[in-house]
Amino acid sequence: MPTVNDHYLKLTAGYLFPEIGRRVAAFAKDNPSASIIRLGIGDVTEPLAPAVIEAMHKAVDEMSRRETFRGYGPEQGYDFLRQAIADNDFRVRNADIAPDEIFVSDGSKCDSGNILDIFGHGNRIAVTDPVYPVYVDTNVMAGHTGPAGATGEYSGLTYLRAVAANDFLPPIPSQKVDIVYLCSPNNPTGAVITRQQLSQWVQYARANKAIIFFDAAYEAYISDSAIPHSIYEIPGAREVAIEFRSFSKLAGFTGVRCAFTVMPKTLAARAADGAEVPLYKLWNRRHTTKFNGVSYITQRGAEAVYSKAGRAQCMELVNFYMANASLIRQELAAAGFQVYGGVNAPYVWLKTPQGVTSWQFFDRLLRQAHVVGTPGSGFGAAGEGYFRLSAFNSRQNVVEALDRIHAKMAL
Amino acid sequence: MPTVNDHYLKLTAGYLFPEIGRRVAAFAKDNPSASIIRLGIGDVTEPLAPAVIEAMHKAVDEMSRRETFRGYGPEQGYDFLRQAIADNDFRVRNADIAPDEIFVSDGSKCDSGNILDIFGHGNRIAVTDPVYPVYVDTNVMAGHTGPAGATGEYSGLTYLRAVAANDFLPPIPSQKVDIVYLCSPNNPTGAVITRQQLSQWVQYARANKAIIFFDAAYEAYISDSAIPHSIYEIPGAREVAIEFRSFSKLAGFTGVRCAFTVMPKTLAARAADGAEVPLYKLWNRRHTTKFNGVSYITQRGAEAVYSKAGRAQCMELVNFYMANASLIRQELAAAGFQVYGGVNAPYVWLKTPQGVTSWQFFDRLLRQAHVVGTPGSGFGAAGEGYFRLSAFNSRQNVVEALDRIHAKMAL
Repeated sequence: MPTVNDHYLKLTAGYLFPEIGRRVAAFAKDNPSASIIRLGIGDVTEPLAPAVIEAMHKAVDEMSRRETFRGYGPEQGYDFLRQAIADNDFRVRNADIAPDEIFVSDGSKCDSGNILDIFGHGNRIAVTDPVYPVYVDTNVMAGHTGPAGATGEYSGLTYLRAVAANDFLPPIPSQKVDIVYLCSPNNPTGAVITRQQLSQWVQYARANKAIIFFDAAYEAYISDSAIPHSIYEIPGAREVAIEFRSFSKLAGFTGVRCAFTVMPKTLAARAADGAEVPLYKLWNRRHTTKFNGVSYITQRGAEAVYSKAGRAQCMELVNFYMANASLIRQELAAAGFQVYGGVNAPYVWLKTPQGVTSWQFFDRLLRQAHVVGTPGSGFGAAGEGYFRLSAFNSRQNVVEALDRIHAKMAL
Repeated sequence: MPTVNDHYLKLTAGYLFPEIGRRVAAFAKDNPSASIIRLGIGDVTEPLAPAVIEAMHKAVDEMSRRETFRGYGPEQGYDFLRQAIADNDFRVRNADIAPDEIFVSDGSKCDSGNILDIFGHGNRIAVTDPVYPVYVDTNVMAGHTGPAGATGEYSGLTYLRAVAANDFLPPIPSQKVDIVYLCSPNNPTGAVITRQQLSQWVQYARANKAIIFFDAAYEAYISDSAIPHSIYEIPGAREVAIEFRSFSKLAGFTGVRCAFTVMPKTLAARAADGAEVPLYKLWNRRHTTKFNGVSYITQRGAEAVYSKAGRAQCMELVNFYMANASLIRQELAAAGFQVYGGVNAPYVWLKTPQGVTSWQFFDRLLRQAHVVGTPGSGFGAAGEGYFRLSAFNSRQNVVEALDRIHAKMAL
């Protein structure tokens, strides 16, 4: 009988969102008349931009005719999309990224898990706490941790606490680490890393020969013009950072699936014999061997996000959600809650009332207001006592949810 | 500095198809007037079925309206598609597979690489030779092999030769193995495993507690009604087999990206403490943690493959390619070549003339006939002296390619 990957058996409980799904389903079953409003999973609710729709219809039509039909595309993505990304996401910000350093994929969740394939064992890996659970779980699966302790933390990982006392900005580690995950704008706290702080991170990485996995999936939500959208806006980052980007939140692609990883050719890591190996070559090998490219139709839709009309329409979507975030901040504060985030990110991070745990607050919010949010503790031990509300919903639902919270839960 | 996954450094040369791409590009650059016909990569050329086009247009429209918009779907695939697959691919063949044992993905290439994630090290793994290179390369990347020897074979793998003497059917190993990859209809040889032989494989796996990875990506091309399309048509297979299926060749989805893995709940493997662990649970965990589902639009397109019109249109496509295969067999035989396959598979496997290596034949075919094929040795040491021609092209191109081969290369 074959052996299993025993590291999977270290994973604690279910992944956060399936657990939320189970609790909501149970509540809905017991309370069939309750009108549940979901501000839990960060999933968009508004339709795709008309420019994207038009581009995808056109691409579907191309697939219907022999002369314009497309079979296998380049595994790394079509040039038209890689070029549009390089021009619009990087060149305009003076970030020096070439089209062939962009690897188009079907999701940042996939990319942030898959990236570990090309790294070895024995690396000291730092994650923030709270953290997007996929970073941690994929490291557990890869065997980079020991078992979980009582708080759910895995031995072998370095946790960088992001709490109110440090404005939810992870401190630069005092010890040397090899890999560090940063997410800005942050999921779940909504905090953003300033240019100065990001420069310090790049300096730390250069000094320690560390690599930063920079997750910028929410960069479109940055409203403060001083905040960097890409780590490559920081000089020297090309030697120390891999960046993850997604069309999910920028353009409502959660059900369409398109993202990309930026892998500069200037990154290296160490082989067992001490040689420095270009990571680009390994990532390209992984991408061409274990992946077969993103749907042509999807890639044409993503390209349209960068058209003049597409950009305006997507920014309208982003602004719509950010107006929701603003309302959530405002009304929760008025109801007596301490709130964070929601200014440069579509997430509001609130402090649960004294003595109430994150999951208790989840259950209370669900039972009393019929509103679903995400327990902060699901993102790590330092998230205990916090709670995430997402701005992704219709205005009507957001207003209704806030009215209920006011009426039933004001402090 | 982080360490790399040193196993990647064991990989020999490039992946087969990029190497072909490089040689063809170089030839095209030196011979700009040559009209090159590609029968190399097994990529479809005919447009998508009208039923699929219609379903995808409809799905794009749904994404344009708030009431019908879809964000994140179930990572494992929508119920509508899993049910259609269970009904049409399995129930009608008396194969007992439930919808929730079907995991929809974006490609069989991805699935056949990703499946290794849930298995441990130290398993004895058997592949056929010749073999789809992804099976081997992903095992190398996962650290399941030693370095490659002079013939390109990796130590630690068990190779099962499929050559003319055994009708290109891999022999059941005399020793015990833990995992074995089978592909029927076979890429590259075009051979198919009969019901009796597949029953023997299932018996072997049950007796040895081995698991069969059964790749049935080409099952739509089976013309002989006695040949099984799924390993689950064989009694007892639910305890020993994982099956990979794809819409790529069935419905021309190479540029659309949809496939699925069948993971019966009855499969188990062994943890370090000796316990038997259901593989279903691990695979589900992998799928929900490292993957975010297939595009809704794509899934609606795949569903349409099972509609009455969709089935008829897709079978028309398959028949079209198989008529090409038949022509290739016939004309190559008339030109004096020894040919195999092409009856239940879209690939013709030919013996290169005495003393000519696979890559020599590749270069000769390219230079003399301006036709691209795939060198057998790219699929493994036992493929040396063979050559694959794909039936995926227009009738006109196939006829033209065969005319040129006749004129320039007849023996």
